[in-house]
Amino acid sequence: MAETQDNLLQKIKDQGDLVRKLKAAKESSGKGKSATNSLQDLEEINRHLSKYSYISGFVPSKADVELHYNLENNLDFRKYPHIKRWWYHMQSFSDSERTLFPVNHPSYAIFNVMQGKKRNFDLEIQEEVSKLLALKAQLGSEDAAPSKFVLKTPKGTRDYNPQQMTIRNNVLQKIITVFKRHGAECIDTPVFELKEVLTGKYGEDSKLIYDLKDQGGEILSLRYDLTVPLARYLAMNKINNLKRYHIAKVYRRDNPAMTRGRYREFYQCDFDIAGQYDLMVPDAECLLVVTEILNSLDIGKYVLKVNHRRLLDGMFETCGVPADKFRSTCSTVDKLDKSPWEEVRTEMINEKGVTPEAADRIGEYVRLNGSSELADKLLQDEKLSKNKSAVEGLEGIKLLLHYCELYGIKDKILFDLSLARGLDYYTGVIYEAVLTQPIKIGNEDQTVGSIAGGGRYDNLVGMFDSKNKQVPCVGVSIGVERIFSVLEAKLAAGDISVRTSDIDVYVASAQKNFLEERMKICAELWNAGIKTEQSYKKNPKMLNQLQHCEENGIPLAVILGESELKRGLVKIRNITTRQEDEIPRDNLVEELKSRIEVLDIKEMNGPIRK
Amino acid sequence: MAETQDNLLQKIKDQGDLVRKLKAAKESSGKGKSATNSLQDLEEINRHLSKYSYISGFVPSKADVELHYNLENNLDFRKYPHIKRWWYHMQSFSDSERTLFPVNHPSYAIFNVMQGKKRNFDLEIQEEVSKLLALKAQLGSEDAAPSKFVLKTPKGTRDYNPQQMTIRNNVLQKIITVFKRHGAECIDTPVFELKEVLTGKYGEDSKLIYDLKDQGGEILSLRYDLTVPLARYLAMNKINNLKRYHIAKVYRRDNPAMTRGRYREFYQCDFDIAGQYDLMVPDAECLLVVTEILNSLDIGKYVLKVNHRRLLDGMFETCGVPADKFRSTCSTVDKLDKSPWEEVRTEMINEKGVTPEAADRIGEYVRLNGSSELADKLLQDEKLSKNKSAVEGLEGIKLLLHYCELYGIKDKILFDLSLARGLDYYTGVIYEAVLTQPIKIGNEDQTVGSIAGGGRYDNLVGMFDSKNKQVPCVGVSIGVERIFSVLEAKLAAGDISVRTSDIDVYVASAQKNFLEERMKICAELWNAGIKTEQSYKKNPKMLNQLQHCEENGIPLAVILGESELKRGLVKIRNITTRQEDEIPRDNLVEELKSRIEVLDIKEMNGPIRK
Repeated sequence: MAETQDNLLQKIKDQGDLVRKLKAAKESSGKGKSATNSLQDLEEINRHLSKYSYISGFVPSKADVELHYNLENNLDFRKYPHIKRWWYHMQSFSDSERTLFPVNHPSYAIFNVMQGKKRNFDLEIQEEVSKLLALKAQLGSEDAAPSKFVLKTPKGTRDYNPQQMTIRNNVLQKIITVFKRHGAECIDTPVFELKEVLTGKYGEDSKLIYDLKDQGGEILSLRYDLTVPLARYLAMNKINNLKRYHIAKVYRRDNPAMTRGRYREFYQCDFDIAGQYDLMVPDAECLLVVTEILNSLDIGKYVLKVNHRRLLDGMFETCGVPADKFRSTCSTVDKLDKSPWEEVRTEMINEKGVTPEAADRIGEYVRLNGSSELADKLLQDEKLSKNKSAVEGLEGIKLLLHYCELYGIKDKILFDLSLARGLDYYTGVIYEAVLTQPIKIGNEDQTVGSIAGGGRYDNLVGMFDSKNKQVPCVGVSIGVERIFSVLEAKLAAGDISVRTSDIDVYVASAQKNFLEERMKICAELWNAGIKTEQSYKKNPKMLNQLQHCEENGIPLAVILGESELKRGLVKIRNITTRQEDEIPRDNLVEELKSRIEVLDIKEMNGPIRK
Repeated sequence: MAETQDNLLQKIKDQGDLVRKLKAAKESSGKGKSATNSLQDLEEINRHLSKYSYISGFVPSKADVELHYNLENNLDFRKYPHIKRWWYHMQSFSDSERTLFPVNHPSYAIFNVMQGKKRNFDLEIQEEVSKLLALKAQLGSEDAAPSKFVLKTPKGTRDYNPQQMTIRNNVLQKIITVFKRHGAECIDTPVFELKEVLTGKYGEDSKLIYDLKDQGGEILSLRYDLTVPLARYLAMNKINNLKRYHIAKVYRRDNPAMTRGRYREFYQCDFDIAGQYDLMVPDAECLLVVTEILNSLDIGKYVLKVNHRRLLDGMFETCGVPADKFRSTCSTVDKLDKSPWEEVRTEMINEKGVTPEAADRIGEYVRLNGSSELADKLLQDEKLSKNKSAVEGLEGIKLLLHYCELYGIKDKILFDLSLARGLDYYTGVIYEAVLTQPIKIGNEDQTVGSIAGGGRYDNLVGMFDSKNKQVPCVGVSIGVERIFSVLEAKLAAGDISVRTSDIDVYVASAQKNFLEERMKICAELWNAGIKTEQSYKKNPKMLNQLQHCEENGIPLAVILGESELKRGLVKIRNITTRQEDEIPRDNLVEELKSRIEVLDIKEMNGPIRK
């Protein structure tokens, strides 16, 4: 049923009340009162928007655009909190997005407000009465039509269909294999945390945190990353050593750019090493883990940029930036991967209060990149060599590069003074993996850019400990959404194909009335662990059954026929070669197993194939 | 750093303002004004609770209990919305829970309100000044202590530690293997949906849905199950056929009973077949899938109860229940697995408005259970045989039982007229798997009960389609949280053990200064795909290294020593037998691989071991 009986009766009662109220309003309006009461209308819209995201249906429509345009500019939002929500949401759409909105027909009441028209009570009553009749009709027949709607997922989110899931699971499996090869254990945390846990950890970005509604409980927010929950987990359980990976979705109310893999709900794949260890030993392993992952994903050439927060601090200090501006200057430098130096320089001077002279000195340094020779050179630099923090950073980088050489990944690493990373909590080495070639998708090249990042954060766990006890940590996060979006684009362009089910054998019948025979054979094959499927129809057509096998890449079909069964035989068909062999019914499982084994060996290169 | 410089400076400024305000308040209070203003105090508490879940710290404490007890009963919650949230949340705790709350010291301002005391300005000023000094101290030294807190995850949720994750992943892997053997594809949907998508789908349970806060966007709610998102997905993408599985967390603001595996955030594992097919063919496969899963999880004997909503409807009708009370009567019958018939009868009569005569007639039927003989008998039943709906249900059950026989699972199935299922949306067959034996955990028996459930819902997709186009569906949901909690209890009782990492080889050194040599060997082993670990310390003690291997079940260690290396040799130690063999350094990878292969064959029974 589309509704439970109880629900339906309640709805019919409510709808009846509404019709009665409208009739009363019509009467009183006929007695000379003005029917167009702007305040009343706004309350009506406000009430509607307390229950619905949009004026009409599940998506923003032209009706929303129109109302948004026509609403007074100086509307008192304190009186209309739900209009406020909607208004700011509508503000967030660009003109080009708005042109794509469908034309939805709002209900008459809201429609009249938008048109600035007098209420047409007759029309309204007519409309509501017809709804009432529709509801009553539902009581009798269970398939009365509900109102029209276009469906969508929330802004910045998406479903994963089976092909996308196959790609996603393949990528994640490769990543997990690397994490496990390095002995990482797996943990998970709730999707939401007490709001206080997240407060004060993300600087300016805190405004992007999703909060849960106050429904009479704790104050909760959706997790923004996996790093702060890890720190909370370590402090809460008083854990001093942990090498863990965590693969889960995180939530940011950011401006989505979905085609480029930027969502409001997205996966993070984090690998972190917590514990008091010798300098740069775990840090170098994090870099090795990134190279192993990027190599196994086979998505082109890349470079791992490294830098050190202590070096950045020392550099800012010697350039004449005051200590309280280190972090904000840092987040400006971080924009160098997207903006030219001139723009970054202007922002430093105009928005961050750095002097032009200091900015120019910074500009000299941030253009430098190289290998350990550069670190050696900077250790001789007149100013940096006198700065304790800078020397500490440079010595750290040198040791890290040395360990990377031992790990055989020296040629992948670039010491880059322009790398800064946005987040506040890093305290030591920072790194970022960047693809250096555009990726070919169909006939187009797509630039992907940053694909992994991380660094050392030695003071975050202490923020959660009652005695401020620190657990030093270093970690890396793989930007899998970008990898997914590249592979999905390749799939769409026909560059790769995926199989979304693993079925090896399809049990088909050539004649009618073989359902029960098929069922018995299926049960036998499933029982033997063979991945098997059949049609759920009693009498499927042979052509449809074979077509299903071809469309879904099922390699083998068992074909039942009356004459063969009488002789104790069944046919096995190879879907690709179309060759059919008769074999004894009793040997079926054995025969299929050996054929599948041969096929599996041929397909060892995995389910993603050219 | 524990704080960014900018944040810290802002805090110091705020704290300074607070101290100045307190001093001013002290002065004005000295001028004869009353310092204890109840309204002002309540506003202060309200303000505090707008930012924090509790009076003090991250968990409910004795301070909360005290304030909750002392607050006036007739407080006007409209004026204090944040006190309201907190008040209802405090109401939700039982006395036994409250006795376990820790003693937390609230800030002086809130404390005085609770004590009904006059404000002690000198104490307050002293307190705030000391906070100010602590903040200023942080500017210089980065490790000043923040205020105390006890940490927790949100109510009804938990972290999964590596052992729990290993159990969880093992269980899910077995379930996925069965789903895939039947050709199910995988999909995923966002964790939240537009609220309207969920509205009107869950009946009374809708009050348990988590809503997101209005932050100026769409109106969103966390998903309550995976069935409604599937229906939305099918309708949105106009998909008519799909066999899919979906494993993901869902959210219910229910009363948690965490030791029995009932959480507010919990996993669902759903398998569903959507499409217009022949009667009972997909339905029987769902039952087979459940048996395959329960068999592979090896958690004891079970029975699969089946019933049919059309039979229930027909039964209610012939017993004299009016049509609009079918669903509510159904949800009362559903309680028969926990309550005796007398209680259920009373609820039917007193709360659902069923007549005593009708209830007694229902009582006659719901005590019946059996196999297809029972269905045959009921088809001869004087009343039921004349009811179209009942006959349809009984014929359906007969066909289902026949197919189950063909699938070889007849002995697991029980046709049970007391099975009703709570959810409104089922339209045909319904089923539920129940463990029939308590599970032995340590020396105690634990009763688990229902462990999977599902049924046919043919009208849900149509609720999302603009033309009310139906896509018939049938599916099953595995209650994995109960399975997790059983296995976790077994783990805690020492009945099973798990390995949380897969490491095969540990690279150790017997003398000092072998870090670089260890690194080179690790890189070589990782490169060869061998799961390898080493100490992150430069000069770890031999004993600690071997202890790490034993604690983590690592089977092999490579031990580097100066004298061996000079001779081009390394030692391989079998951790269990403690046997050590010298082998040529150049053969290391090859030798380890063959030893690991032998170990893997011995451990084929998987990572959960007695």
